[in-house]
Amino acid sequence: MDKILPYYKETKNEVEIFENCYKEKLPFLLKGPTGTGKSRFVDYMAAKLDKPFYTVLCHEETSATDLIGRYIIKGSETVWLDGPMSLAIKEGAILYLDEIAEARPDIIVAIHSLTDHRRTLFVDKTGETVKAPDSFMLVASYNPGYQKGFKELKPSTRQRFVAFEFMYPNAETERDIIENETNCDSEIAKKLVKVAEKIRNLTELGLTESVSTRLLVDCAKLINVGMNPRLAAECAITAPLTDEEDTRDALNDLISMIL
Amino acid sequence: MDKILPYYKETKNEVEIFENCYKEKLPFLLKGPTGTGKSRFVDYMAAKLDKPFYTVLCHEETSATDLIGRYIIKGSETVWLDGPMSLAIKEGAILYLDEIAEARPDIIVAIHSLTDHRRTLFVDKTGETVKAPDSFMLVASYNPGYQKGFKELKPSTRQRFVAFEFMYPNAETERDIIENETNCDSEIAKKLVKVAEKIRNLTELGLTESVSTRLLVDCAKLINVGMNPRLAAECAITAPLTDEEDTRDALNDLISMIL
Amino acid sequence: MDKILPYYKETKNEVEIFENCYKEKLPFLLKGPTGTGKSRFVDYMAAKLDKPFYTVLCHEETSATDLIGRYIIKGSETVWLDGPMSLAIKEGAILYLDEIAEARPDIIVAIHSLTDHRRTLFVDKTGETVKAPDSFMLVASYNPGYQKGFKELKPSTRQRFVAFEFMYPNAETERDIIENETNCDSEIAKKLVKVAEKIRNLTELGLTESVSTRLLVDCAKLINVGMNPRLAAECAITAPLTDEEDTRDALNDLISMIL
Amino acid sequence: MDKILPYYKETKNEVEIFENCYKEKLPFLLKGPTGTGKSRFVDYMAAKLDKPFYTVLCHEETSATDLIGRYIIKGSETVWLDGPMSLAIKEGAILYLDEIAEARPDIIVAIHSLTDHRRTLFVDKTGETVKAPDSFMLVASYNPGYQKGFKELKPSTRQRFVAFEFMYPNAETERDIIENETNCDSEIAKKLVKVAEKIRNLTELGLTESVSTRLLVDCAKLINVGMNPRLAAECAITAPLTDEEDTRDALNDLISMIL
Amino acid sequence: MDKILPYYKETKNEVEIFENCYKEKLPFLLKGPTGTGKSRFVDYMAAKLDKPFYTVLCHEETSATDLIGRYIIKGSETVWLDGPMSLAIKEGAILYLDEIAEARPDIIVAIHSLTDHRRTLFVDKTGETVKAPDSFMLVASYNPGYQKGFKELKPSTRQRFVAFEFMYPNAETERDIIENETNCDSEIAKKLVKVAEKIRNLTELGLTESVSTRLLVDCAKLINVGMNPRLAAECAITAPLTDEEDTRDALNDLISMIL
Amino acid sequence: MDKILPYYKETKNEVEIFENCYKEKLPFLLKGPTGTGKSRFVDYMAAKLDKPFYTVLCHEETSATDLIGRYIIKGSETVWLDGPMSLAIKEGAILYLDEIAEARPDIIVAIHSLTDHRRTLFVDKTGETVKAPDSFMLVASYNPGYQKGFKELKPSTRQRFVAFEFMYPNAETERDIIENETNCDSEIAKKLVKVAEKIRNLTELGLTESVSTRLLVDCAKLINVGMNPRLAAECAITAPLTDEEDTRDALNDLISMIL
Repeated sequence: MDKILPYYKETKNEVEIFENCYKEKLPFLLKGPTGTGKSRFVDYMAAKLDKPFYTVLCHEETSATDLIGRYIIKGSETVWLDGPMSLAIKEGAILYLDEIAEARPDIIVAIHSLTDHRRTLFVDKTGETVKAPDSFMLVASYNPGYQKGFKELKPSTRQRFVAFEFMYPNAETERDIIENETNCDSEIAKKLVKVAEKIRNLTELGLTESVSTRLLVDCAKLINVGMNPRLAAECAITAPLTDEEDTRDALNDLISMIL
Repeated sequence: MDKILPYYKETKNEVEIFENCYKEKLPFLLKGPTGTGKSRFVDYMAAKLDKPFYTVLCHEETSATDLIGRYIIKGSETVWLDGPMSLAIKEGAILYLDEIAEARPDIIVAIHSLTDHRRTLFVDKTGETVKAPDSFMLVASYNPGYQKGFKELKPSTRQRFVAFEFMYPNAETERDIIENETNCDSEIAKKLVKVAEKIRNLTELGLTESVSTRLLVDCAKLINVGMNPRLAAECAITAPLTDEEDTRDALNDLISMIL
Repeated sequence: MDKILPYYKETKNEVEIFENCYKEKLPFLLKGPTGTGKSRFVDYMAAKLDKPFYTVLCHEETSATDLIGRYIIKGSETVWLDGPMSLAIKEGAILYLDEIAEARPDIIVAIHSLTDHRRTLFVDKTGETVKAPDSFMLVASYNPGYQKGFKELKPSTRQRFVAFEFMYPNAETERDIIENETNCDSEIAKKLVKVAEKIRNLTELGLTESVSTRLLVDCAKLINVGMNPRLAAECAITAPLTDEEDTRDALNDLISMIL
Repeated sequence: MDKILPYYKETKNEVEIFENCYKEKLPFLLKGPTGTGKSRFVDYMAAKLDKPFYTVLCHEETSATDLIGRYIIKGSETVWLDGPMSLAIKEGAILYLDEIAEARPDIIVAIHSLTDHRRTLFVDKTGETVKAPDSFMLVASYNPGYQKGFKELKPSTRQRFVAFEFMYPNAETERDIIENETNCDSEIAKKLVKVAEKIRNLTELGLTESVSTRLLVDCAKLINVGMNPRLAAECAITAPLTDEEDTRDALNDLISMIL
Repeated sequence: MDKILPYYKETKNEVEIFENCYKEKLPFLLKGPTGTGKSRFVDYMAAKLDKPFYTVLCHEETSATDLIGRYIIKGSETVWLDGPMSLAIKEGAILYLDEIAEARPDIIVAIHSLTDHRRTLFVDKTGETVKAPDSFMLVASYNPGYQKGFKELKPSTRQRFVAFEFMYPNAETERDIIENETNCDSEIAKKLVKVAEKIRNLTELGLTESVSTRLLVDCAKLINVGMNPRLAAECAITAPLTDEEDTRDALNDLISMIL
Repeated sequence: MDKILPYYKETKNEVEIFENCYKEKLPFLLKGPTGTGKSRFVDYMAAKLDKPFYTVLCHEETSATDLIGRYIIKGSETVWLDGPMSLAIKEGAILYLDEIAEARPDIIVAIHSLTDHRRTLFVDKTGETVKAPDSFMLVASYNPGYQKGFKELKPSTRQRFVAFEFMYPNAETERDIIENETNCDSEIAKKLVKVAEKIRNLTELGLTESVSTRLLVDCAKLINVGMNPRLAAECAITAPLTDEEDTRDALNDLISMIL
C-alpha cells in the first residue's frame, strides 16, 4: 500500500539537498521569511523519508532543559521526562528546531556535540551520554529578517549546518498551492498570486515581512464562503501586514485594481 | 424562548467577517485604539454564536503557563489546574486574548500550533497533545497605538490571523450607544458626540489615544445625576485624556463651546 | 450621636464629583503633585460616606498578588490570605491605590475587570470570581510630575476613571490648614503661605516638586516650640526641597525677606 | 550617677533641631558627604536623649522585608523574626536608615505610613498594624553627591522629613576631634586640618568626595606609631581619595608643603 | 600494540608548546576563529599524551556550579554530583573550557586558585579543598572575533595562561584535511581550498567569521554523493556564511569562477 | 625552630605600613594592576605576622551571604555554615577580599560595621552580633584599571581604608623573582626584565594591563625546558597580552630585538 505524502510543491532543489544531507549526516538549516513553507517542507521530508519527526518552536525562553528533559515530581516520586531532543535521538528521528536563533544560549551545548564528529548528547542532569544513531537528523530554521544585529546564530553554531534559503514560491507553484488548499476558483487563485507578486515587489512599502502564501490561502477561503473579494483581501492580506494608514491605503488600492 | 443578545452596534461588516472566520476556522485579530468596542464585540459575537467564552487580558507577565495551566499544591496533593486556553479548547469555546502583544514570548508556542493546520495544543507539563474541536476559535486584540517598534507581534504570528481594524463609531452609532447606556437626554448625547468628533480631529494635540465612547458615557452619567455639563466633561473627558496644561485648556475651551 | 469628620478643606468641587462617581459606580482618579491633600481627601470622603477604607501605596514591586491575596504557610497548613483588594470588595469598601502608575503591569488585569460593566475580580489562584457589590468603589492617585514618558498609566486603563486634578490650596485655605494643624500664630501662618506662594511661582528654580502644605505645617510646628523662624524654614522648607547650593541660597534669601 | 555621652562636637545647631523634631515627632533627614559625622551625630543624639537606637545601612538590595521582618525556619518551626524597624517601633527607639536613597523602592510603603498623621506600620505578612509610640523617631541620611539623577528620594518621600545639611567641621572643631581620637601632637592635628582645608578648596581636582575627618584621624594614628608624616598622609589621605596619577601627585605635593 | 591517534595536521609548533606547558604545569589558552581546529587539537593532544579528557562548552549561563558540582535530590536522598572540573582534577585529566569568555564571572574563582602556585580547587558547597595532581592540565579557548569590548577575559585571568593563536591552515594542510575526511577527488579538494583562500582574503565582505575548513569538508561530502559542485558550495559555503544578498552574490560569483 | 617565610621581595615600604595598620587596627587596601604581587604580599604578611589567613576572590555575584555564612540542609537537619568573614573574625585572622570592587553591594553592610569604631559584624540571619577581636584585620585589593566609572568602591567605603599602590617591581627585584622561581639562566632573566620594561613604557600600545612578572616567569619556564626564546615569549608574553594584529607584531618585534 502506497503512503500518501502531504502536499508540498518543490521550489528549487531543496528535496535533493535535504536527502543528501540526510545521507551524509549533515545538519540542515532553513533560512527565509515567514510563510515560505519552511515548516511544511520539513513536515514533507519527514514523511517522504518515512521518519518520526519532532518540532520545537523556539522562543526567548527555550532552554537546553526544554530540549533535553527534566526531572518532574509525579505524585510522591521524582521521574525523568525526556525532552523532544532526547526523544528524537532515541528514536532516530528528525528534530526540527524552528526559529532557532530565538532560543536561549545554553542550547548550543546540546547542538554542538550533536553536530560534529561526536554526534552525542550529554545529559548533565543524569550524567548520561547518548550517541545519536545514523538515522537521527537535526534540522533548524531561522528568519534573517528578524535578527537585528544582536540576536544571531553564532558563527561557530551556524557553520555547523548546510543551509538553504527559502523564498516565496513562483507564480505557478503558488497558484497550485492556493487551489489545492481551498478548492477555490482558478481565476481567483491567479488574481491572488498577482496581488502577492505586486506587493512583494513594492519594497518601498517597508514591510518587515511581505505577504505569505498563507495569507492568500486565508483570503481565498473567505471568498469561497461568499465574501466580497476586496473585503476578504482587506481582512486577510492588508490588515495582517500593516498598521500604517498610508501603507494600508496603498495595499488596498493595489488590491482593488486586481480583484 | 428567544435569547437576548447584549447590546452591540455594528460599525462596518465585522459581524459577517467574524462569522466567516468562525466557519472557516480562521483565527481573528481585532486591531484598534482603546474604547472602540473590541472587547464588547467579542462578547457580542460569543452570545450571537451561542458559544462559551474565555477572556485573558494579557500583560507583560502573561506566560504560556498562565494560558495552558499549572500544577498547584492543594492540601497535600498536587493537582493540575487547567488555564483558560485549555478550558476553551476542551469546551470548544471562543478564547479571547486581549492585548496579545503585551504577553510574554513563550505564548507563541501555544498559539502557532493552534493556528495552523495542526490546531493542537501541546501541554509540555503533562506531555499531552490536545486537539482543538472545530468549534474552538481563537480571537486576539491588539492596539497598534501602544507598540513603539520593539513590542510587536512577530510577523510569523500576525500572519496567522485574519484581522479587522476597529475605529471610533460614526456619529449616529455613538449617539445610540450613549443614550442606550445612560438614558440621557438625546440633546446631551448629540453634543457629546460632537465634542468627541472635534477632539478626534485635533491630531495636533498629540494625544496618545483620543476620546473613547466610554468617556462620553461616563460624562453623560455624571450629567444625568445633575452635575454641570462642563464640569462633568472636565472630569470625565479632559482629565483622563491629558496631564498637559495647554492641552487641557484647549480641550476645555472646545468643550465649553459645545456644552 | 454625630460622627466627627476628619479635618478637610475643600478646594473646588471635588466632594460633589466624588459623591457622584460613588453614586454612578465610576472609578475615581486623583491627579496632582505631592502634598496637595490627595490621600487626606480620600480619607475624608470615606468618613463622610461612612465607608470602610483600604489604602495601598503602590511601588515598583506591587503586583496583582499583593492586591488580591496569596496562599501562605501557617504552621503546617496552607491558608489563603486576602489582599486589600479582595477585602475591600468583600466589605463593599473604598479601595485607594495610591501612586497607581508605580505598580507592576499585572495589576491592570484586576483593575480592568473591576472597572467595566463586569465589576468582577477573577482570583486566578483560587479560580473564584468575586462580584463587587454596588457599594465598592475604586479610587486611585497618580502624580503626573513623576511620569517621565515610560512609566505611565496606559490609556486603556486611564480612560476607565473619572479624574480630578488637585492643586495647591489657595492662600486662605492653606492658612486655615496650617492654623488648624499647629495652633500657630495667625501671623506666622500668613507669612508661611506667602513664602509658599512665592516659591511656587519661581518656576525658573527647576524644582521637581514645589513646596507642599505639609512642609509649611512642619515649619510652623518648629516655630511653635521656639525655633528661630528662618532656621525652622531652612530645615523644614529649603533642605527638603533641594540639594543645589544656588537653589538653596535663593530659597533662603526669599524666606528671610518674609519671615 | 551621670551618663557619659560619646564624644561629639556640634557644628551648627543640629542638636537643637534634632531635639525639636523629636519633641514634635517629625522625621529627620541628614544630608551631606561622607565623613562629616552624620552617623556619629545620630549616635550622640540617641545617647543624649537616652534612647535605644537601631541602625540600618541601606544598599541596593535592602527591602521592606529587611526592615520589617520575616518568617524564618527554625528547626521544624516557622517563627517570625522582627526586623530593625519593627523592633524600634516596639521599643519606642530611634531608627536610623543610613543612605536611605540606596534602598529598594518598597521601603517607602513602610516609611510613608510611619511619617504622616497615621504613624503606623502595616506588617503585610502578619496582617498586623503596629502603632508607633510617641517616643519612636525615624531618622535617615543620604548623600546628595552620589545621586546622579536616577537614584533619588522621591519628592513625596523627601517632603516628609525635616532636613539638615552636614558639612565638614570648621578648623577648630576638626582639630579637637583629631586630638581627642588619637592623642596626637597638637601641631600635627593643626597641620592635618590645614591639609584638609586646602584639599577641600581644590574643587578643580574633581574628587567625587573630598577628604573626611576620618582620613585625618587615620593619618594621625599612623604618625603616632612613628611613621614618616608624608608617607602616612600618602597612604591615609591621598591613596584612599584618588587613583589618578595627576591628582595623586597634586595631593602629595600639597601635603609635602605642609607636613 | 600501537595507539592510533585521531587525525590532526599540525599548523605551526602548537604540539611542542602544548607539551612544554603540560610538563611545566602551565595552563594553555587557544585563541582563534571558528573552525581552525582548536577543539580537534585538544582532542588530539589528549590522545597523544594518553590522558583522560573533559570538555565544557561554555555559554552565557555556565557557572562555577556547573564546573564544580552540585547536590542533587535522588529519590529521597541528597547526593553530591561532581562537575567536570572536579572529575578532571580527581583523575588528573585535561579539562578543556571551550569559549571560556562566554561563561559567567564566578568561574574565575575556580580558575584562579587552579592556575597559580596553589593549584587547588575550593568546593564551597562541601567545604573541601582539592589539590590538583601534577597530571591535571587546564586548557581553554576563546574567539577574539566575538568579544566586542564588554565580554572579554579579565587581564588577571588571561595572564594566567600561555596562549597560542590558531589560524586557518595553509593550502597544503587544508587539502590534506579535506581529502582525509571525505575521500573526495584531489582536484575538488584543491579547488575548494582555492575558494577558501579567495574568500578569506576578501576582508571587504565584512564577514564576522570567514569560511572554516569544516564548510569545505561539508561541501566536498555533498559533491561526493553527486551534487552539482556549485549548488553544493552555495548550500555548504555561501548560505552558512551570510544572509546579505550582495555578499551572497559575490560569494557565489567567486565560487562559480573556480568550481 | 625558625619559621620559613614565603618568598617576597619588598618594593617600597609596604611591610612597615601594613604592620602599622595592623597595630592600629586600620583596614588596608591594596591598589594596583594584575601581577604586581598584591596577593602574594598579603600571603607573606600573614606568614610574617604568624596569623591565620582567609582569601575571598570577589566577583560579580559575591554577596554578603557568601562572606558571612548561610544555613544549609545537611541530611534532614538545617545547620549553619560560617562564611570566611565569620571564620576570620572568630579566629582573629586576616581576611583578604581580593578585587573587592567586583562584589555585590550588600557586602558593604558587613564591611562598614567592621571598619569603624564598632568593629562588629551583625549576622542578620541568626540575629547575632559578633565583635571582632583586636587581632582581626580586614585587607582588600582592587585594580583601578578595571573600574570604568560605574563599578567603583563608594567613597564612603573607600575612605575607611589606608591604601597602598602596588606597581611593577624594579628591574633588580624582578630579576631576583624570575631567577628564584624558575632557576633560569641569569642572562635570560635580565633580558626578560628588559623586555618587560620596554613594553611597560610603550603606553601608546593601549594595553588594558601591561606585562606582569607572572608572564616573565612563565616565559622563563618554557625557555628552561628548551623552547626557542622568541617562540616562548610569543606564547607566554605577547599572546596573553593582546589580540590585535598590530600590537602583536609590535610586541614580537620588540621581543626579537632583545631575546
